[in-house]
Amino acid sequence: MNKNFTEIPYKIYLEEDEMPKAWYNVRADMKNKPAPLLNPVTHEPATLDELKKVFCTELAKQELDDTTAYFPIPQEILDFYKMYRPSPLVRAYCLEKKLDTPAHIYYKFEGNNTSGSHKLNSAIAQAYYAKNQGLTGMTTETGAGQWGTALSMASAYLGLDCKVYMVKCSYEQKPFRREVMRTYGANVTPSPSMETEVGRKINEEFPGTTGSLGCAISEAVEAASKNEGYRYVLGSVLNQVALHQSIIGLETKTALDKYGVKPDIIIGCAGGGSNLAGLIAPFCGDMLRGEADYQIIAVEPASCPTMTRGVFGYDYCDTGRVCPLAKMYTLGSGYIPSSSHAGGLRYHGMSPVVSQLYHDGYLTARSVTQTEVFAAATEFARVEGILPAPESSHAIKVAIDEAMKCKETGEEKVIVFGLTGTGYFDMYAYQKFNDGLMGDYIPSDEEIKASTDKLPNI
Amino acid sequence: MNKNFTEIPYKIYLEEDEMPKAWYNVRADMKNKPAPLLNPVTHEPATLDELKKVFCTELAKQELDDTTAYFPIPQEILDFYKMYRPSPLVRAYCLEKKLDTPAHIYYKFEGNNTSGSHKLNSAIAQAYYAKNQGLTGMTTETGAGQWGTALSMASAYLGLDCKVYMVKCSYEQKPFRREVMRTYGANVTPSPSMETEVGRKINEEFPGTTGSLGCAISEAVEAASKNEGYRYVLGSVLNQVALHQSIIGLETKTALDKYGVKPDIIIGCAGGGSNLAGLIAPFCGDMLRGEADYQIIAVEPASCPTMTRGVFGYDYCDTGRVCPLAKMYTLGSGYIPSSSHAGGLRYHGMSPVVSQLYHDGYLTARSVTQTEVFAAATEFARVEGILPAPESSHAIKVAIDEAMKCKETGEEKVIVFGLTGTGYFDMYAYQKFNDGLMGDYIPSDEEIKASTDKLPNI
Repeated sequence: MNKNFTEIPYKIYLEEDEMPKAWYNVRADMKNKPAPLLNPVTHEPATLDELKKVFCTELAKQELDDTTAYFPIPQEILDFYKMYRPSPLVRAYCLEKKLDTPAHIYYKFEGNNTSGSHKLNSAIAQAYYAKNQGLTGMTTETGAGQWGTALSMASAYLGLDCKVYMVKCSYEQKPFRREVMRTYGANVTPSPSMETEVGRKINEEFPGTTGSLGCAISEAVEAASKNEGYRYVLGSVLNQVALHQSIIGLETKTALDKYGVKPDIIIGCAGGGSNLAGLIAPFCGDMLRGEADYQIIAVEPASCPTMTRGVFGYDYCDTGRVCPLAKMYTLGSGYIPSSSHAGGLRYHGMSPVVSQLYHDGYLTARSVTQTEVFAAATEFARVEGILPAPESSHAIKVAIDEAMKCKETGEEKVIVFGLTGTGYFDMYAYQKFNDGLMGDYIPSDEEIKASTDKLPNI
Repeated sequence: MNKNFTEIPYKIYLEEDEMPKAWYNVRADMKNKPAPLLNPVTHEPATLDELKKVFCTELAKQELDDTTAYFPIPQEILDFYKMYRPSPLVRAYCLEKKLDTPAHIYYKFEGNNTSGSHKLNSAIAQAYYAKNQGLTGMTTETGAGQWGTALSMASAYLGLDCKVYMVKCSYEQKPFRREVMRTYGANVTPSPSMETEVGRKINEEFPGTTGSLGCAISEAVEAASKNEGYRYVLGSVLNQVALHQSIIGLETKTALDKYGVKPDIIIGCAGGGSNLAGLIAPFCGDMLRGEADYQIIAVEPASCPTMTRGVFGYDYCDTGRVCPLAKMYTLGSGYIPSSSHAGGLRYHGMSPVVSQLYHDGYLTARSVTQTEVFAAATEFARVEGILPAPESSHAIKVAIDEAMKCKETGEEKVIVFGLTGTGYFDMYAYQKFNDGLMGDYIPSDEEIKASTDKLPNI
């Protein structure tokens, strides 16, 4: 195949004045709205007043608002975005050539910032609203470390305190990730810690535990509630996060429109759903309004198959059950992926927005094993230059699969996927793969049933 | 101060058709040419035939050519450049605001690629010419790891073998850096190894040594000479490297010209001189032709003060004395910076081009201690978002110093500095700094004299 290397630039950058000035709230166009969050004690829909105790006021409002389609992005956030956005939409010419596929492959690369991922898009928004409300600090949890790093950066920029509960196994396996957060002035504590009631309880109940995301969330929520002027912030799952992350999809759509390109397939990795919700938002909007049709594929790890093998129902968002409940695809709040699982995307649940869209048939889901994910990551890195995060590589794997189908059929489909971040702090996992020491774990039906059977009866 | 945040974009990206199509060879405009490389045995100027045994033919020609001003960049290299270039020229609005300085600060950011630095600019060129000549592999040395990573990436892209001798202390301290190279298919060996004669000799002479760049160079040269179809490649010091790196300065100048900005001060960090030579090339060209004047500052570590405290004379480029000799500023080929020195920029010599320009007064040099460098790096990271490499942070430190002088005088000087890379694989050093465990080492005059006294008598 003789690709024309000049027709579309390698990287499409938007000009500053082409950048989105408002976030898009896909819920406004959904006929079936995501079910409301529930108070964890009363099981009644959480009110604004209740949410304001956990989130700062503007964010609580964003969380509940399912009718306003566009939220103007405050100027201060736009200024911060300009430091690392627009992110490039890259035409994967070299990958296409390597695969010898007629497909046109594009990826939206969110890794060109120090936090190394898309998480910064929501971190700066959440930090800004906290600062604006006169708060002095934030608490959060981090698993793979991308969200914690992003929030540390945003906090440093705005002069806010930042306290991060980092899942213990990650804290120990990724000392350099921790050091980046410290360089940005954050206080980083391995979770479960002895600093919180819930941490002490979990340490007592499960001595030697290396922690989980659900547990770190509970600790961060407790720490926020006990510190005057602090709020808890979360990097995924929530409606407000999906809203902020819509910047990814909006930029992608603007860049494609600029060159008259219409995607056939849109692929995103899915853990808690932050990147996926953001990437697909404007495209789902088109579909919801009946203006266009796309094939949207969510990709999740075979070891944490929330959408492909979980159930759709109300569940706790955290192990300590202090957060509101959400209706979502879930494996049960007690589900912890096998310790052999290397990448992120290990959250037991899924964004209520993504869950509802999936439930209503606007997207499909697929699960892939980690060894095939790392093989795809390596193949991609060698020709496209970027060393991808394990999470992002789930999307790469399926993009390659779809491009190879096009090779069989001869179709020139346009494939767009989200490359959420870089793998610079995941080299321990790459080393395992390079040394041939990485295996795959696929939970049994019984294991999943045992966990989903414990869902609250709502 | 009320900065106008819209007058100049945060990041100036060139369009693909504005990218340089030729490298600029500053030697063509120098009245005093850099002295020729000398054969290490005969001490006669190295001929093309001699150099062709070490470098591939085109590169040997580039090394010797001091009259051709522009070398067209082959299309294949231009295509590769498009994957990560043009690199952004960033207006440091946030740093200016933080410092409250009337200075206008710009930095050319070369870290937005997986190798994490500007080294890729020359790696792909050297790999391309090797491939074009029908060679099958390359050997090289790496210290901090940026060059080895860059060459691994370029080799993977072109399907060449790549063998990297990594300074042992770095190999052990930066396992993840090593893993990135392996992911790109490179063979990485800690140096001194037992694989080469020179390695065995050094291991015997200095048992337990953690290696040096000069020693790793000797090993790589020996390995290349013993492998059919292999050549040795070097990431700094050489004239050919300065030529390829001119892409940095050319893009910078084009971007500034696009907005009618003329720099007053240009600052670059200096180890072997690859980044500095590239950044300043077109600006020095202006000065050499009498068309403009700039203040150019080379910044080096106080623990390896090649230009500020070394001597200008012929010296060996490597410990094993198998490479040609170069006339340069040098601390003596046996000089090894204190083990407390954390960053790169630890080479004993300096690019002959940079050395000659410095000798002729076209640039000044300044040395800074590592604790002040890491303090500047942290300050920069918190407001500008990018976590800089320790090497690059030497330039940041002096840029901040100059901006603070402007604050005193009220001058609105335009300061441009080279931000050569990211510090993601240098978190061990950041950790030392964060924990308050980093000290400074400044060699005594006697220590430097003892080393420079051993220079060959040429």
